[in-house]
Amino acid sequence: MSANPDSILSQTATVDERIVAAIPNSRKIFVTGSRPDIRVAMREIACSPTQTRTGLEQNTPITVYDTSGPYTDPEADIDICKGLQPLRHDWIEERNDTELLDGPSSDYGVSRLNDPELKKLRYAEPPKPRVAKAGANVTQMHYARQGIITPEMEYIAIRENQRLDEYNDPSLTKRHPGTPFQANLPDLVTPEFVRDEVAAGRAIIPNNINHPESEPMIIGRNFLVKINANIGNSAVGSSIEEEVEKMTWSIRCGGDTVMDLSTGKNIHETREWIVRNSPVPIGTVPIYQALEKVNGKAEDLTWEIFRDTLIEQAEQGVDYFTIHAGVRLAYIPLTAKRLTGIVSRGGSIMAKWCLSHHKESFLYTHFEDICEIMKSYDVSFSLGDGLRPGSIADANDEAQFAELKTLGELTKIAWKHDVQVMIEGPGHVPMHMIKENMDKELKECHEAPFYTLGPLTTDIAPGYDHITSAIGAAQIGWYGTAMLCYVTPKEHLGLPNKDDVKEGIITYKIAAHAADLAKGHPAAQLRDNALSKARFEFRWEDQFNLGLDPDRARDFHDETLPKEGHKIAHFCSMCGPNFCSMKITQDVRDYAAAQGLDNAEEAMQKGMDEMSKEFKEKGSEIYNKL
Amino acid sequence: MSANPDSILSQTATVDERIVAAIPNSRKIFVTGSRPDIRVAMREIACSPTQTRTGLEQNTPITVYDTSGPYTDPEADIDICKGLQPLRHDWIEERNDTELLDGPSSDYGVSRLNDPELKKLRYAEPPKPRVAKAGANVTQMHYARQGIITPEMEYIAIRENQRLDEYNDPSLTKRHPGTPFQANLPDLVTPEFVRDEVAAGRAIIPNNINHPESEPMIIGRNFLVKINANIGNSAVGSSIEEEVEKMTWSIRCGGDTVMDLSTGKNIHETREWIVRNSPVPIGTVPIYQALEKVNGKAEDLTWEIFRDTLIEQAEQGVDYFTIHAGVRLAYIPLTAKRLTGIVSRGGSIMAKWCLSHHKESFLYTHFEDICEIMKSYDVSFSLGDGLRPGSIADANDEAQFAELKTLGELTKIAWKHDVQVMIEGPGHVPMHMIKENMDKELKECHEAPFYTLGPLTTDIAPGYDHITSAIGAAQIGWYGTAMLCYVTPKEHLGLPNKDDVKEGIITYKIAAHAADLAKGHPAAQLRDNALSKARFEFRWEDQFNLGLDPDRARDFHDETLPKEGHKIAHFCSMCGPNFCSMKITQDVRDYAAAQGLDNAEEAMQKGMDEMSKEFKEKGSEIYNKL
Repeated sequence: MSANPDSILSQTATVDERIVAAIPNSRKIFVTGSRPDIRVAMREIACSPTQTRTGLEQNTPITVYDTSGPYTDPEADIDICKGLQPLRHDWIEERNDTELLDGPSSDYGVSRLNDPELKKLRYAEPPKPRVAKAGANVTQMHYARQGIITPEMEYIAIRENQRLDEYNDPSLTKRHPGTPFQANLPDLVTPEFVRDEVAAGRAIIPNNINHPESEPMIIGRNFLVKINANIGNSAVGSSIEEEVEKMTWSIRCGGDTVMDLSTGKNIHETREWIVRNSPVPIGTVPIYQALEKVNGKAEDLTWEIFRDTLIEQAEQGVDYFTIHAGVRLAYIPLTAKRLTGIVSRGGSIMAKWCLSHHKESFLYTHFEDICEIMKSYDVSFSLGDGLRPGSIADANDEAQFAELKTLGELTKIAWKHDVQVMIEGPGHVPMHMIKENMDKELKECHEAPFYTLGPLTTDIAPGYDHITSAIGAAQIGWYGTAMLCYVTPKEHLGLPNKDDVKEGIITYKIAAHAADLAKGHPAAQLRDNALSKARFEFRWEDQFNLGLDPDRARDFHDETLPKEGHKIAHFCSMCGPNFCSMKITQDVRDYAAAQGLDNAEEAMQKGMDEMSKEFKEKGSEIYNKL
Repeated sequence: MSANPDSILSQTATVDERIVAAIPNSRKIFVTGSRPDIRVAMREIACSPTQTRTGLEQNTPITVYDTSGPYTDPEADIDICKGLQPLRHDWIEERNDTELLDGPSSDYGVSRLNDPELKKLRYAEPPKPRVAKAGANVTQMHYARQGIITPEMEYIAIRENQRLDEYNDPSLTKRHPGTPFQANLPDLVTPEFVRDEVAAGRAIIPNNINHPESEPMIIGRNFLVKINANIGNSAVGSSIEEEVEKMTWSIRCGGDTVMDLSTGKNIHETREWIVRNSPVPIGTVPIYQALEKVNGKAEDLTWEIFRDTLIEQAEQGVDYFTIHAGVRLAYIPLTAKRLTGIVSRGGSIMAKWCLSHHKESFLYTHFEDICEIMKSYDVSFSLGDGLRPGSIADANDEAQFAELKTLGELTKIAWKHDVQVMIEGPGHVPMHMIKENMDKELKECHEAPFYTLGPLTTDIAPGYDHITSAIGAAQIGWYGTAMLCYVTPKEHLGLPNKDDVKEGIITYKIAAHAADLAKGHPAAQLRDNALSKARFEFRWEDQFNLGLDPDRARDFHDETLPKEGHKIAHFCSMCGPNFCSMKITQDVRDYAAAQGLDNAEEAMQKGMDEMSKEFKEKGSEIYNKL
C-alpha cells in the first residue's frame, strides 16, 4: 500500500465481514493433483450422526463445488488492497510462450495510468501485463489441440469430480438410463476428457493469462452447469468499493463467473479492483466502455477505439468478452415489426452504428483481427445475441435465428485461430419454444457451449423475473446449456442490491442443479440424498447446512419454533408433535426391518394376523430407532 | 348477528383492509350469460394511451381471470359474519333434485351444534344443509352425461374465455402449430365443450350443493391451468380469524381453490367460517379430522367415524375431498427401503392403520359407499397420492406407481356413479422423470385431471422450495396437469405466514401461466403482449399494473428511481438516461417506418448510401415517436 500513498481507496478498502464469515458447519479442503501446486479447493459440509437402536451411525460429510475462493479459507490472508495470490502464475510462466510488458500497451490504459486525478481511487500495484510472444498462441484450446494437458485442465477435472470416487451411494446407481439430449457425461472426469472437450470446442476454460488469480473452471455441457452473476455500476449509482463487494458477495453465494457490466464512471479502475480480487473468471462487454469513450454517440464508434478497448481490458485480465459481431446490417430491419424491437444494449448500439453508416459493423468486418487479440491473452469469446427477443411475442423469430447462424460462422473463424468460443442465447421464450433454441444452437454453432439469459417463460411478472426465468433456465440447462446468466427480482425495474443478487444467484443455483440432476451428472444427487436423509431423520441442523442457504432455512424454521430444543425435535411446525408423517413412516420401516421383510410378497406370506398382533403388542407406537 | 348473541367472533370478526382494497388501475366487470343471473366477474386492467408522432393511440384494456370474488367489488357489501351471497342458490333449487334438512345429519355435526361452549366462536347462522333427494344424483358429471348444460357450465365457458373474442391481436395467430402433448384447446370455450369435458371425466367442476356461494370454475387440462393454496391451523398455532384471512388473502393473490388442512383445534367451526366466506372451491383431507376424533391414534380409526366425518364436511359445503384410498396393504412394504419412506400425512395414517390391523384400509373397502355420499352433495374426489416420493431418490418408484394404478381403478368406480374425480400427484421428481408421471397418469387414470404438488426438482434448497417446485410445476402443467398445488418458501421448515402465502401463490401463478402459454391457451398471451408493449413504450404504470404483483413492481422501481417523474421517464435505472437499448431500438423502428421498409431485402434495395445520408441528416437521434 505504501507504494501508492495517494490511493485513498487502497488504504481504506476492506472486505465485509459477511463475506469472509465461515459457512455454517463447513470447512475448506484441498485436493492435490499430480503436482503440489495443483491444490483444488472444495467445501466439505459435516453431518451429525444418525441415532439408531444400536447407537450412533456416522454420516459421510458432503463435498460441494466451491466458488468462494480464498475468502472462506480461514488460513488465507485477505486484503483486497493487495489482491489474491496468483495461483496460476508458475503454470503460465513455465509454458514459456508469454512475455511481460513494462506497462499497458493500450492508449487508454496508458492515459489512465498517467492521470494524477485517478490516483486516489486506483488499485495500488497493478501487475505488469503479460502477452503472448510474437507468433505464439496461448489459448487453452491451442494447447488442447496439440494434445497438451495443462495444469488448468487437471485442476478442472479434480474440481468437477467433487471427490465422487470417495462415496458409495447405491441410490446413485439407479440413475436414469440416459437423457434424450446430447449430454455425454463421463462417470469420472479425467484431465484427458477436459482436454478433448476443449479441443473439440464443446467446452471453454476462460482463463486470461493476466488473471492468474483465477481458479480454473470449465463451461461445457458435459460438465456441471455453471451460473453467471452480473454486477456493474451505471450512471445512476454505485461506487468501486460497492462493485468489489458485489463480486465477492456473488461468489460467496455461488456465482461461477461474474460479468462487470459497468456503464458509469471509472470503468477502467473499477475493473482492475475486481479482477485482482476475483477467484472466478470475469467477463465484460467491451462495447459499453468504448461507447463511453465517444460520449455515448454510437455512430462515433470506430474499430480503432474498440480495438484499443479490447487490448486495455485483455491486459487487465478479463477472461471473456461479449462481442455482438452477429448483428449484421441486413438483419436490423427484421426487428422493425417486433413487439419489443432490439433489447440487447450491445445489439442496439451496433444496430445504430450500422444504420448510421449503412455498413456492416466493424465487429463483423474485423472479426479476424479480434481473434488475433484474443489468442494473445487467451480471452474467450462470448458471442453476443444482440437480436435476442425481448418478449414472448418476439421469441424464435427470423432476426434471432439469422443472427444465430452468423454466430455459427464466426465460431468457425475463431476456432481456426484456436480461440475459445461460447454463444449467448435468449431472453424471453415460452416453454414450448425453448428446445428449438438449444437444438439450433448446437447445429448452427457446431456444439460450442451455449450461455443463456434465462430464458423468461412469461412477461407478466415484473418483480419475480428470477422465477419466470429460472423455469426456463432449468429447462434449457437440462437440454444442454452450459452456463446460465442469472436474473434478479429487480430485472426490468431497477439495479439489484445485495439481497437481490443473492436471491438471483440461489435461484440460478437451483436451476443449474436441477439441470445437473436431470442430465445425470454423477455427483449431483449426492447432496440431495444427504439432505433428504437428514430431513427424514429430523437432523435439523444438517438439513439447514446441506442446503443452498443455511441461514435462511434456519431463520424460517425458527420463526415458528424458535427454541434450541426444537432443532433436535422429531417433528416440525407443519403438523405438530403428534401428527407427523415422517414419524409414522419410521414405524413402518422399523416394523418391516424387525420382520426382516424385504418386499411385499414376503410381507404377505408372513401372515396377516400374526403381523397385526405383533404390531399391537409392541404398543403400535414403536420409535425404536430414535 | 343478533341471532347468536353469544358468538363473540360473529360480532367482532372483520376483514383486513388490504383484502378489500382496490387492485391498482383495475375494475370489476361482469359478463352476462343467457340468463340475467349468470353474471361472470372478471377484472379489467386499464392501460394509458401510447404517445405517437400523430397523437395519442388508445390501448385496449386487458381482462384477466378473477379469483378474488366479491371482496374486490366496490358494490359488494362485505361482512364475513354474514358470509357471501349464495349466487348458485336458484340454480340448485330449480333442478328440484335436492331437499333441505333441518340440521346436520352427522353425529359430529349435531354434537358440535349442541355444545354451548362453542357458541362463542361458532359462525352465527349456518345455512340448513341440503342433500340429494332419495335416489337422485346431483353431480355436474351426472348432468353432463345426460346432455344437460347447467348454469355452472355456461358460467365457466364465459369465465375461461376472458372476453378473448373482443380482442384482435395478430401476434396471437403466430401461435405454435401444436404442442407435443395431449392438449386439445378450443379457440373459444363453449358451454357444450365444458359439458363434454366433464362428461368424459377429463375435467371436474368442484361445486358442492352446500357451497352455493362459490363461483363456478373448472379443473381440466383443456382449460386454464389452476392453482391451489393450502391453509389450515395446526396444534402449534393459528386462530379461526387468521384462517379466514388466509383464505381471503389467498384468493386475492390468485388462488383458484383453497384447501383447509387444519389439524389443530376447532376444525369444524373453522371450516364453517371459511366455506361461508369463500367464492372459490374448498378442499379438505377428511382423515385429518377423523384422526383428531380418535385422539391421534391411527389404529383406532373406523369406517363409521370416517363416514360421519364425510357427511359432516359435505353438509358444510366442502367441494372436494382428498381420499387416500390407493394406499393398499401390499404397497406399504415397498416403501421400507426408500430414502424417505412415506411423507404424505394421509398416506402414513392409512399405512399405520393397515399395518396395525393387517387389512386393506376402509377407504379402499368402502369406496363405493364413499361414492354414494359424494353424489348426494356433489363432492369431487381428489384421490390422494399417499405414497408419493418425498425425495429425488424415491421418485417414480414401484410404490408410487403401484398406487397410481389403483387410483385409476378407483376412478372407474367413481365414474360408474357419475362422481367427479381428480388425481393427486408428486412430490419430489427430477426434471427428466416428470413427463413419465404425466403420461402414466393419463393412461392409468383414464385422463382424469391431474393435480400435483410441485413437483420439487431438487431437494437442496430449503427456504426456496417455491422455486425448486415451480420449475417442476410449470413443466408438468405444460405436459397436461390441470391444477398445481402451491408450495411456499416455508415448505419443510415451518407454517407459512401471509407473505409466504403470497409468494407461493404468485410463484404458482407464474408456473400456471407459463404452462398456459406453452400449451397454447388462446387467451394467455394477450397479457404478456400488453405488458411487453407497455414496457417497450416506457409506460411504467401500465407495466406495473399489468403484472401479477403491481405493488412489488412499483416498490422495486421506486427503490432506485423514487421520483414520480421517473415513472414517465423514457429510461430506467439499469442503463441510465443516455444508454437505453429500448430508446435506441425505437430509432431503428422509426427509421424503418419512415422509409416504408418492410423487410431486409427492400432495405438493401433502397441503396446504402442514401439511407446512411438521410439518417445522419436527421441528426441520428430521431425520437419522433416520443
